[in-house]
Amino acid sequence: MSESNNKPNYAMLTDFYEYTMANGYYLNGWKDRIVYFDVFFRRIPDGGGFAIAAGLEQLIDYLKHFHFEPEDIEYLRSKGCFDEGFLEYLKNFRFRGDVWAVPEGTPVFPGEPILTIRAPAIDAQLIETFTLLTLNHQSLIATKANRVCRAAQGRVVLEFGSRRAQGADAAVIGARAAYIGGCAGTACALTDELYGVPAGGTMAHSWVQMFDSEYEAFKTYCELYPNSATLLVDTYNTLKSGVPNAIRAIKEVLIPKGIKNYAIRLDSGDIAYLTKKARRMLDDAGLTDCKITASNSLDEYLIRDLLMQDAKIDSFGVGERLITASSSPVFGGVYKLAAVEDADGNIIPKIKISENVGKITNPHFKKVYRLVDRETGMALADQICVYDEVIDDTKPLTIFDPLATWKTKTLTNFWARELLVPIFKDGKRVYDSPSLPEIKAYCENEIAHLWDEIKRFENPHDYYVDLSQRLWDIKRILLDMNSDNH
Amino acid sequence: MSESNNKPNYAMLTDFYEYTMANGYYLNGWKDRIVYFDVFFRRIPDGGGFAIAAGLEQLIDYLKHFHFEPEDIEYLRSKGCFDEGFLEYLKNFRFRGDVWAVPEGTPVFPGEPILTIRAPAIDAQLIETFTLLTLNHQSLIATKANRVCRAAQGRVVLEFGSRRAQGADAAVIGARAAYIGGCAGTACALTDELYGVPAGGTMAHSWVQMFDSEYEAFKTYCELYPNSATLLVDTYNTLKSGVPNAIRAIKEVLIPKGIKNYAIRLDSGDIAYLTKKARRMLDDAGLTDCKITASNSLDEYLIRDLLMQDAKIDSFGVGERLITASSSPVFGGVYKLAAVEDADGNIIPKIKISENVGKITNPHFKKVYRLVDRETGMALADQICVYDEVIDDTKPLTIFDPLATWKTKTLTNFWARELLVPIFKDGKRVYDSPSLPEIKAYCENEIAHLWDEIKRFENPHDYYVDLSQRLWDIKRILLDMNSDNH
Repeated sequence: MSESNNKPNYAMLTDFYEYTMANGYYLNGWKDRIVYFDVFFRRIPDGGGFAIAAGLEQLIDYLKHFHFEPEDIEYLRSKGCFDEGFLEYLKNFRFRGDVWAVPEGTPVFPGEPILTIRAPAIDAQLIETFTLLTLNHQSLIATKANRVCRAAQGRVVLEFGSRRAQGADAAVIGARAAYIGGCAGTACALTDELYGVPAGGTMAHSWVQMFDSEYEAFKTYCELYPNSATLLVDTYNTLKSGVPNAIRAIKEVLIPKGIKNYAIRLDSGDIAYLTKKARRMLDDAGLTDCKITASNSLDEYLIRDLLMQDAKIDSFGVGERLITASSSPVFGGVYKLAAVEDADGNIIPKIKISENVGKITNPHFKKVYRLVDRETGMALADQICVYDEVIDDTKPLTIFDPLATWKTKTLTNFWARELLVPIFKDGKRVYDSPSLPEIKAYCENEIAHLWDEIKRFENPHDYYVDLSQRLWDIKRILLDMNSDNH
Repeated sequence: MSESNNKPNYAMLTDFYEYTMANGYYLNGWKDRIVYFDVFFRRIPDGGGFAIAAGLEQLIDYLKHFHFEPEDIEYLRSKGCFDEGFLEYLKNFRFRGDVWAVPEGTPVFPGEPILTIRAPAIDAQLIETFTLLTLNHQSLIATKANRVCRAAQGRVVLEFGSRRAQGADAAVIGARAAYIGGCAGTACALTDELYGVPAGGTMAHSWVQMFDSEYEAFKTYCELYPNSATLLVDTYNTLKSGVPNAIRAIKEVLIPKGIKNYAIRLDSGDIAYLTKKARRMLDDAGLTDCKITASNSLDEYLIRDLLMQDAKIDSFGVGERLITASSSPVFGGVYKLAAVEDADGNIIPKIKISENVGKITNPHFKKVYRLVDRETGMALADQICVYDEVIDDTKPLTIFDPLATWKTKTLTNFWARELLVPIFKDGKRVYDSPSLPEIKAYCENEIAHLWDEIKRFENPHDYYVDLSQRLWDIKRILLDMNSDNH
């Protein structure tokens, strides 16, 4: 493990079996054999209607910096099971493959490739673990953050979860993903420093406890930070002590200066009841400008309920339940072999059978089209095609359910947009990443073009992800072949 | 952010409010004011009867390396809200405090300090976020891993979850914590390289698919790795194809060499049914030495059920549900001010009130005793005391429930052992960390000395965590004072 440009080299963050397989490919003479792998997922977290792809930027960094240090080779040698030629080969190893992926912030659906790799077998195998790790983690958090932000109905949501994150990366990179998904900012200073996600935050209970009185704590804070005071009012008793002391400090320090940007924060108790009471107390005191921020074990479900009960909340700080996606904390992206090339460069599609029909893979080198209504701009369906197919969107297109092929639908007046874009070509980056605010804006716009039926938190409508006739035929032939062979 | 000795400097992995508060302490003349903070948690994940403390080693690294790089100071300056004197002060900042903590691998219970810090206010405040992050994350995973390992009833459990972990640290450090909790090893090569947790693994479905036939894939693997072949038998059809091909390859390649260490792995389908069938097929073929490994969305509940159904499994590979602790993915450690020192060095206890009685903190600088039966070595209760109290374990001790004080119990023939040990003194490390295998062995031994009643997965008995009379009296006085004031 080493560091270059402050990016850790995670070449060794790899399941051990990738090395045993890669060593086997090497000894089998397959080190330059071209293979195709897809990343896709089968289930949307929380039973939602769509996921948001994220984590590509960290994958790009990883692939660019992928190399082995002498101590890594030494470690592998110490395991006593690797060929010396293979270890020698790793010394100057660099990733040589092609990568296509959906841009970060794209809504994605089960079964479709969100990333495809064409690479020599060793290259493709060694990068499996980290590729899945970064896409799974950030897609999980971006998807969750988006649910939370949609529940907040336009109110500001801030990511507050570093202390409960599952490790340092989960905190720092998780806050990046939360921003893509819709959060306005984070509490994590390092995410701001590294990625420019705006960090903010004012006081903990310890600040209040350090002073002889709550009033003094608030007054001092308002004097120090007149332009961004958010006073935490629940250290002792929210309504009897916290809010009155906040009102007093704000009136004494901020109002005479004509400041209008200030807030109180509630972090415990019944938020619906307390915010309504606090709102009335603030308004009665003439502090109608005062914003109310709520935190404390929030998620999309609690936020929805609080707003249904007319809680008076202007912004939300969401911690552990967002940064761990606690109600559904796994994004199950998988990495499956889709094809290999023979010596003449012919692409031989490969399939993985399963007794569970939903787990059978889609074979072959593929592309994905998103079919969009020309009039409304709304996404209608995605179609997975063989890599060299082109959808002619000047003509009607009949799509069909790949599991229930008698269910068809004919699309007219649509346009077809390729979802996967080139990221690496022959190991060289060919993709200019958008800025993080651009990714966030793109994500928001893409989601605005999904039907509401897909956005329900519970029991959403299934968005269509279909196969082209040609791909379906190839899959069927492979299934028939395998049912004979095994 | 920078790197020294391959340890990232996470000084900036801090909630932004720690900086606004620290700047306030600085401007208030409190930069050398001594404060006391405790780390404790309120709820055991999964409703279990105990948690396992872990993550201290990473905290030690963090505190040792804590410093700010010029770009960190520049970042803070760019926020426009910090005093230049404060920023100047941070330039040469090093942690100056004292730290006491329970050793890694210790079973711990709600409400008791698992770490106590005595430090200048700025020092104590700036380290809050990372301190919680590392203890919360690793304690979560160690606790979960221990549940999984106990369900496996002595069978080997391997950690397989890197690809579904919540970021790189969650994978690498999570596998370390899983080892402390009882896993025999991991799939993550980097955890092995960095921490010596044994990594292993053999093949994915892609290995099988790369060959023209499953038999050829198995045969080649047995030839390459005769001493550690675990053949994945579910790529096509487990019983019709996978197991027969594995038997054939093992008989042709391994048996003639007299090798007895080999296995098959099942990763899909009904594991109870398939392993029983596979066991019979292997035995009928004379391969009674062949071990069976199972994986696929396992956790303590499924493992318990599989073993109840007499599934024939010798070892388990446990992935996403362990590495994310998916059924209860948050460890809720908190960091609360317990006391401050006045100018004369008198310790002034502090309390945080809450309308929820369980959320009221235990004030003062404290220590924790574990009271152990002299005869059986079993842990009887923990008692939280004021820092200068000493339990005389030559005399009977009457303990009482801090919430229902009429419930008492008198202990005799016990010894009292201090749980928190010195880790840092005046910013210098004073603790020799045990090796990771020592921590693992210590953890196992400690858990062997907990009563079974505490170890039930559901509805376990509450272990006693009581307050000394003196501490209880101090808490009561502070509560009375605060109920007057607020």
